[in-house]
Amino acid sequence: MKSMQKIYNKNCFNFRKQKKFCMKKIFLFILFCGIAFRGVAQKSLQEKLGYPKDSKLLILHADDLGMSHSVNAATIYAMENGSVNSASIMVPCAWFPEIAAYARTHPMTDLGLHLTLTSEWNFLKWGPVASKTEVPGLINKNGFFYLTVDSVQRIGKPAEIEKELRAQIEKAKQFGIDITHLDSHMGTLFGNIDYLKILIKLGREYKIPVLLTKAGFRQAFNVNLDTVINDKDVALDMIYTASPDDYKKGMENYYTSVFKSLQPGVSIVIFHTGYDDSELRAATIDHVDWGAAWRQADFNFFTSVQCKKLLKDQNIQLITWREIRDKLLR
Amino acid sequence: MKSMQKIYNKNCFNFRKQKKFCMKKIFLFILFCGIAFRGVAQKSLQEKLGYPKDSKLLILHADDLGMSHSVNAATIYAMENGSVNSASIMVPCAWFPEIAAYARTHPMTDLGLHLTLTSEWNFLKWGPVASKTEVPGLINKNGFFYLTVDSVQRIGKPAEIEKELRAQIEKAKQFGIDITHLDSHMGTLFGNIDYLKILIKLGREYKIPVLLTKAGFRQAFNVNLDTVINDKDVALDMIYTASPDDYKKGMENYYTSVFKSLQPGVSIVIFHTGYDDSELRAATIDHVDWGAAWRQADFNFFTSVQCKKLLKDQNIQLITWREIRDKLLR
Repeated sequence: MKSMQKIYNKNCFNFRKQKKFCMKKIFLFILFCGIAFRGVAQKSLQEKLGYPKDSKLLILHADDLGMSHSVNAATIYAMENGSVNSASIMVPCAWFPEIAAYARTHPMTDLGLHLTLTSEWNFLKWGPVASKTEVPGLINKNGFFYLTVDSVQRIGKPAEIEKELRAQIEKAKQFGIDITHLDSHMGTLFGNIDYLKILIKLGREYKIPVLLTKAGFRQAFNVNLDTVINDKDVALDMIYTASPDDYKKGMENYYTSVFKSLQPGVSIVIFHTGYDDSELRAATIDHVDWGAAWRQADFNFFTSVQCKKLLKDQNIQLITWREIRDKLLR
Repeated sequence: MKSMQKIYNKNCFNFRKQKKFCMKKIFLFILFCGIAFRGVAQKSLQEKLGYPKDSKLLILHADDLGMSHSVNAATIYAMENGSVNSASIMVPCAWFPEIAAYARTHPMTDLGLHLTLTSEWNFLKWGPVASKTEVPGLINKNGFFYLTVDSVQRIGKPAEIEKELRAQIEKAKQFGIDITHLDSHMGTLFGNIDYLKILIKLGREYKIPVLLTKAGFRQAFNVNLDTVINDKDVALDMIYTASPDDYKKGMENYYTSVFKSLQPGVSIVIFHTGYDDSELRAATIDHVDWGAAWRQADFNFFTSVQCKKLLKDQNIQLITWREIRDKLLR
């Protein structure tokens, strides 16, 4: 999450500039081919989904399910009683079976996979779903995933990455999870063009949307998304997530500001609901950022009456990955 | 633990009968060989350790470290503030690194390995330390250890068992744990003569004592311990652990009765300290026996003033596996 944080922050600029550039390219393409262009590609994502052009559609998304009971319990509560309407699961983690059991008994819950290649905490660890001998470049000497995104990106071979991602997807399916979307724990898969291609390939193969946005992707990850996606792939308009600075200033301020400045389009706010209890404090020990108190603050905001009121006042409509998947990819 | 429980209960009869039988065999052996018998073999374990023959030596031992933060935290508290003086660690579990970190900073704590081949809970799971492709007979279709001892014993090949046990021992050493003893989660290794031989072989090789007792071993596990151990191996006199019936009648009653009836020799009481908190309640969901409340009851007794007073009143001396290891095996 730490790297992802920086990434997302850079990523949060107005997507219109990028879109303008994209339109220019499409125009040249039409001229070149001499084909009658019917305007489908000009449609915004919200229009493709059947909403008016000025709709402000938002996914309120919790990461890291499966990591600990505290995260599972808090996120389930926030989905059932708060405003959270989507979340993603870390298949390699010890508490994965708990959230998988919930997914089976609550099949309409919007649950995707938080594809995982790092094990970033000190006291609570995990390793690959694939056999260790099959993915030697993804594990440290203790058999766990590496601590940092940088280590994965320096050492992890694309063939091993694909093997491990497939193993996570297949295990989730085996556990009865109806996977609504794919994203990447700590953004590991976004910052390497080869990894990103694998992620997008898997999304297409399984007909599952992948968390992507053209807005700021190149700036954040040094990857030109236009070279790897096509018009059939889903790319959201904006991704928001709180930075350590935002946390210091108060999560309520940050999310209020996001909601108030939200533009028409399909956006996502990514956060980390959890309880500030002894389990999560021990799991995130020596980490203030994305620690237990941080996750409790996220929980507090997204289960608040104020959050619900803000969404209503700002005329924001919640949308799930399942709706996107089923309308556009299946 | 469930199977182990039944096993230990059957196991708790007076060890003297067994000892008498053993002495008879030794006598015949002396006659046969015509060798002057110097009485070394007649020495009781407490005498071998340098204590008087009438000493009541006891290990107060907590199982399942590494399984969850709740178990780690409660057991560390009970070792530092209560009467618990020994514990064993499950290397394959997600919270293993937390207790390993404690072991490194508290090198005199008496910590052994709770060698693990089962994953008995529903929501919190673990699998082998060895690569899955190396131990295919030890995992289910989800890549976790089997739920029951019976499944392991029906399917697990000895060569795979040895590979996995070695991987657990080597990983613990790699994490800086000074392993004081070896025992077996849910008693899986005791009920199969081939597994037991591997366990004993590893104990000899690493010069680490193994949890064994001649008293009742055949009745409990249908294995004749005399055929697999020799005079140099350590075998305790008695093993005590609470059964579901004991739990229903109150842990205080059970442990008080054990302490009051304790005979001279070297005995061990095995229990499961943990906090009855949300993490452990979720981990042990649908299990009353060995569940969170059970573990809290164990914690309560072994951190009580009453426990300390009873030990003193009954003239019971605590002894660690480290003392046994260092005096007899190194």
